[in-house]
Order: sequence, then structure tokens, then C-alpha cells
Amino acid sequence: MANSTTLPAVLVNSYVSAVMSVSEGVGIVASFLKPEIAIGVNASNSKAAAFIGIVGGPGHCTVALMADEHSFTAYVEAFTGGMIKPDLSDSMSMSVLGEITNMVSGRALILAEMPGLDITPPQLFSGNNIKLSPTVKANVKSFTLPFDIGPGRIYLVVSVY
Amino acid sequence: MANSTTLPAVLVNSYVSAVMSVSEGVGIVASFLKPEIAIGVNASNSKAAAFIGIVGGPGHCTVALMADEHSFTAYVEAFTGGMIKPDLSDSMSMSVLGEITNMVSGRALILAEMPGLDITPPQLFSGNNIKLSPTVKANVKSFTLPFDIGPGRIYLVVSVY
Repeated sequence: MANSTTLPAVLVNSYVSAVMSVSEGVGIVASFLKPEIAIGVNASNSKAAAFIGIVGGPGHCTVALMADEHSFTAYVEAFTGGMIKPDLSDSMSMSVLGEITNMVSGRALILAEMPGLDITPPQLFSGNNIKLSPTVKANVKSFTLPFDIGPGRIYLVVSVY
Repeated sequence: MANSTTLPAVLVNSYVSAVMSVSEGVGIVASFLKPEIAIGVNASNSKAAAFIGIVGGPGHCTVALMADEHSFTAYVEAFTGGMIKPDLSDSMSMSVLGEITNMVSGRALILAEMPGLDITPPQLFSGNNIKLSPTVKANVKSFTLPFDIGPGRIYLVVSVY
């Protein structure tokens, strides 16, 4: 069980593994861009974001999966086997991003050995050049985990409180 | 204590009151546009959004406060007494929206008599024409509550699971 000191490192490692294995499960190779991991928020060109809150256990956190247009297209096509046309203004298509965020978080929290947490269902945003603002409070640590998926990038922003 | 049947109505009423009273506290008159309340998501021209998750008690919910550029400016100026310049790319300025969402949720959950809930800290998004995608699952009810604040509009999107 992670305590609050090691929580960020444990969570970050678990989320990296979870993104790679969930992606692999749908046939997408997500390469973690370790040199580009950023303290704070750094996710450019994002057109879609799925956001969940995690409450309970050693700390609260929020997780946002952000995708540019290329990676959004790749995940929707891979996840639905081409059954759903990638379209940022279509809620079925957007919900794929939410489902991936759910799956990634579920797996990450198992890997991090943090039972008893409650997860909110994903909230989905689309727009042009979506940015996440870093929270300015001193007790918040945010990490941006970038992944190259070939045609584009996804970013996982994990904020721990 | 609200049960899961009356939860949406209780939450919606509480949030409407909370938005009005928190706004009044900083000198902004927020008029609830009752005829325009929408089932689902309907928040146009949004440039900034603050998102929180609420977990525990009778149900999970997510709340997003969305603002167009005019209302964002009005709230940042009113809330900080003109000390912080409204700027969508500045995290201090954006955090005002998060603080308002926090205050509104805190007050709404007291009004709804739902103790024991945990709230995630707000996650802040900015961008052009941000849209919230409605969740396509059958057990999710979303409500968009529009408020006129004079120079612009804010929208509170409450999703109950």
C-alpha cells in the first residue's frame, strides 16, 4: 500500500504501465517519451480530453487523458474496430476516450495496489487547443506523461493532492 | 438526506441556489435562465472550464462550470477585486474559476444535505469553443444550468450517476 510520500512516484509508474498495456490491448503501440516527462502541465495541440476524479485512500487525484486529432482518430478506430467514425463532435466517438481513461485508471490503481478508491465516470471535453491549467496550490503535484503512438501523441496528466 | 431517486432534482436546485449566492458574494448578479435549462449538455462559446468530481453518499457526480470570455473576465475581476488580470493562459487567473466551482459545490452539497461526500480539487481547462460531450451511458443524467451574468453567461453542467 502506497503512503502519501511515495504516492506520486507509484502512481506515475502505474499509469505509464497501464497506458501501454491498455493501448497494446487494442493494437496500438504507445511509447512512453520518458525524457519529455514534465512536472506540471504540458500537453500541446489537444483537441479532446477525458477527465476523471479519484477519491479515497492515501490521497485525492485527478487524471486527464488528452489527445490530438491524430491520436484521437487512431484510438477510436482501433477501439471500435472501425465501427465508429472518429468525430470530435460525436458523443459515441468521444466516449471511446472516456472508456480508455476508465480502463487505464482501473489498471493503474490495481498496479499501484490502492484498493478502496472511488472513481468518477469520465467527463469528456472537446475543443481547439485545449489546455489544462496547472493548479497553483502548493500541495498539488502534477505530472504530464507524454506517449508517442505513431500518428500522434497522447498526454496523461496526473495531479496528486 | 436525499435518496438516489430524488438526487438529480435536489442537486440541481441546490446548485442553482449555490451559484446565485456565491456570485452575489462577489458582487455579481447571476440570473438563472430557467426556461433554457437543458437535459444533456449545451454550453456554447465556452473558453474556460473548471471540473470537479464528487464521490460518496447516494451517487457519484461530476460538475463542470463553463464560462465564456466575458463571464470569465467578470468573475476574475470581481473575485480578486481587480488584483489579477483576467487571462485565460494564466494559471492564477484560471484558478479563480476553480475556486468558484469549489465554493459553489461546497455550498450546494450543504444545501442538498449530503454530508460525507469527497470532492476532488478542480481541474482547469481553457481553449477555444470547449464542448462537453454528454456521456452516452443510460444511467447518467446530465443537466445544463445556464446563468446570465450581464456581460456573458456561465453554464453549470451537473452529471449524476
